[in-house]
Amino acid sequence: MISQKMKKLVAGSSAIRAMFEEGKRMIAQRGEENVFDFSLGNPSILPPEDVKEAMKEVIETEDPMLIHSYMNNAGYEDVRKTIADTINQKNSSSFTEKNIIMTVGAAGGLNVALKAITDPGDEIVVIAPYFGEYKNYISNVDGVQVTVSPDTENFSVNFEELREKISPKTKALILNSPNNPTGALYSEEDIKKTADILLEKEKEYGISIYLITDEPYREIVFNGNKAVFVPKFYHNTIIGYSYAKSLSLPGERIGYLVIPSEIDDFEEVLGAMTVANRILGFVNAPSFMQRVIMRVADKTADLSVYERNEAKLYKALTEYGYEIVEPKGTFYMFPKCPIEDDKKFCEDAKEFGLVVVPGSTFGCPGYFRIAFCVSEEKVERSLPAFKKAIEKYR
Amino acid sequence: MISQKMKKLVAGSSAIRAMFEEGKRMIAQRGEENVFDFSLGNPSILPPEDVKEAMKEVIETEDPMLIHSYMNNAGYEDVRKTIADTINQKNSSSFTEKNIIMTVGAAGGLNVALKAITDPGDEIVVIAPYFGEYKNYISNVDGVQVTVSPDTENFSVNFEELREKISPKTKALILNSPNNPTGALYSEEDIKKTADILLEKEKEYGISIYLITDEPYREIVFNGNKAVFVPKFYHNTIIGYSYAKSLSLPGERIGYLVIPSEIDDFEEVLGAMTVANRILGFVNAPSFMQRVIMRVADKTADLSVYERNEAKLYKALTEYGYEIVEPKGTFYMFPKCPIEDDKKFCEDAKEFGLVVVPGSTFGCPGYFRIAFCVSEEKVERSLPAFKKAIEKYR
Repeated sequence: MISQKMKKLVAGSSAIRAMFEEGKRMIAQRGEENVFDFSLGNPSILPPEDVKEAMKEVIETEDPMLIHSYMNNAGYEDVRKTIADTINQKNSSSFTEKNIIMTVGAAGGLNVALKAITDPGDEIVVIAPYFGEYKNYISNVDGVQVTVSPDTENFSVNFEELREKISPKTKALILNSPNNPTGALYSEEDIKKTADILLEKEKEYGISIYLITDEPYREIVFNGNKAVFVPKFYHNTIIGYSYAKSLSLPGERIGYLVIPSEIDDFEEVLGAMTVANRILGFVNAPSFMQRVIMRVADKTADLSVYERNEAKLYKALTEYGYEIVEPKGTFYMFPKCPIEDDKKFCEDAKEFGLVVVPGSTFGCPGYFRIAFCVSEEKVERSLPAFKKAIEKYR
Repeated sequence: MISQKMKKLVAGSSAIRAMFEEGKRMIAQRGEENVFDFSLGNPSILPPEDVKEAMKEVIETEDPMLIHSYMNNAGYEDVRKTIADTINQKNSSSFTEKNIIMTVGAAGGLNVALKAITDPGDEIVVIAPYFGEYKNYISNVDGVQVTVSPDTENFSVNFEELREKISPKTKALILNSPNNPTGALYSEEDIKKTADILLEKEKEYGISIYLITDEPYREIVFNGNKAVFVPKFYHNTIIGYSYAKSLSLPGERIGYLVIPSEIDDFEEVLGAMTVANRILGFVNAPSFMQRVIMRVADKTADLSVYERNEAKLYKALTEYGYEIVEPKGTFYMFPKCPIEDDKKFCEDAKEFGLVVVPGSTFGCPGYFRIAFCVSEEKVERSLPAFKKAIEKYR
């Protein structure tokens, strides 16, 4: 007796979970040491000690009534002020607490943003390959997903197609950089080109197009790279962020939206998103964890393992013959499958103990995703399996 | 550029918030001691000391990787097991961890439940007066709200009308006992009558009708009363719960759904609700607070102040001439306005420093809600204001 709509969502959205369950089964059968589960984006490193200290400090020093109470649906004012200051320091921006809404993770934030701006039938543009949940979030608000096909050269944006796919019904474009599943990091030039197209189309159709940048991997960048601060290049940018990966707190569901004052109809959008936070049932981001975040807003966990894993995997896999656009950030790699059928490849790879996710899950068949948020030791031990997985087809 | 749908939701859903903001303005103008803000259901008592102890214990004794990590979207298994045991002990039920989904508060739980079962156009029945957010939650899933008009005799269920309003398109009935805004507590007889009607209609139309019981006030009951354990009387019951009021943790967004194995299509419904938790952007209930709840699942804050406030207010207000169905639980009272126009009454009452919410907000014009989750001392000081507010019309 579940809804027809839900039936489709359940069927279509369980691919990665199924891989993960399969991984657990394989471990039970073959032993932990023979299975290399690269299916889930679950951080493998500890939160920094600062988080523990901050938790204790909040418990011991703050008003026990305040730390568990309702507050403005946008979050505690002092927490939002601290986060605004932290962003300003890094980007020479001038946000205040008014520009920040605390959210139940980035997932909560994206749902809030889409709820505020989307009427049934409105179009939301995504760039393939994309995080599979976008499909569900867009469906939650009866929006229509419009997909720009992959730029498999360097997993940037297929700009010509982006221009074609924007219509008078476009409400937003979702950008995810550093990118899940490819690890691509959009350059300043990429962002400028994107902004130019959006501005051109805003003018042509007389509409506002919001650029929603989903940035949970912002701090996980390699070789001194830096994620572009998008609001500098486009007036209608809304940032979604989560502390899940940078502080290794995925279970806490804590993140925020940045709504710059420069966006069209700022007050109305801000009000709508604040109300959406309540209406969707989030009400507010978890209160205690907000107080904790205020104390560690400028900290990260030791993210260096991801960079080392990336280097090891990239070097070995390219040597074995895999074609890969080298990731510049995140803990994902998105190699081309040695055979056309990505589902078959992922199925075949299990023979060697590898659990990886087909590219079709991300709107990009023919590729597969490795989530290398695992120990370095596991990465090293997995290399022979990757070698065998490609040699199988020689 | 917000959506048309959101414009309506924003306009229609800000009444209580507006009262609260007005209350703050009044305090600024007239001084704290001259304003009696009874507008918001924000618990006024401290969480029990056990919560603080549990928080420290989790920090000091549990694996720092585990307590902040992703887990099954339904929540940690041991947390769910503990909660199932606690419910079983009180109600001689036999739930296991499989019957519990941890949710982002009761608001999160209701949204998850509705998402799983509702197709656009499906009907969700609510009993007036009702918590205003139900309207929004039903709208989130494009459901159609069907409202049973108030039984103003004793704020139970208007049974004849309930029978008439159930159609082949009915997916669920939402019951809220103890009730916001009336404080009514449905008796075993009420629940049996409701169950009989639902069973009759399930048979007549050959459908499943879920009875969603929203129970955040379950522990706040007066004079030794007890909230009825609904699954005992109806096979298709789903319970939504939150620790917001019982443990005074409203900001933490932690609660659960109980999905008894007896419901129609149990496995499918359970699966859909677990996926809905993810798809809606909650992903999982906050992880650290789940670990804390496991240690205090059978505790409550000292809720006795609400009973004392109720007694004081009821005695005084009835003496002054207000007509009131005496609350049996919650921290709400829902007197009849001395004049027909409830909005005018609430506006007039501000003259005496009273901030109360019009019954129309809850689908029951002609009444007003007092949220007496304030100190006893404030209740006492407010009494002359209530006296003046009714004498104004003599």
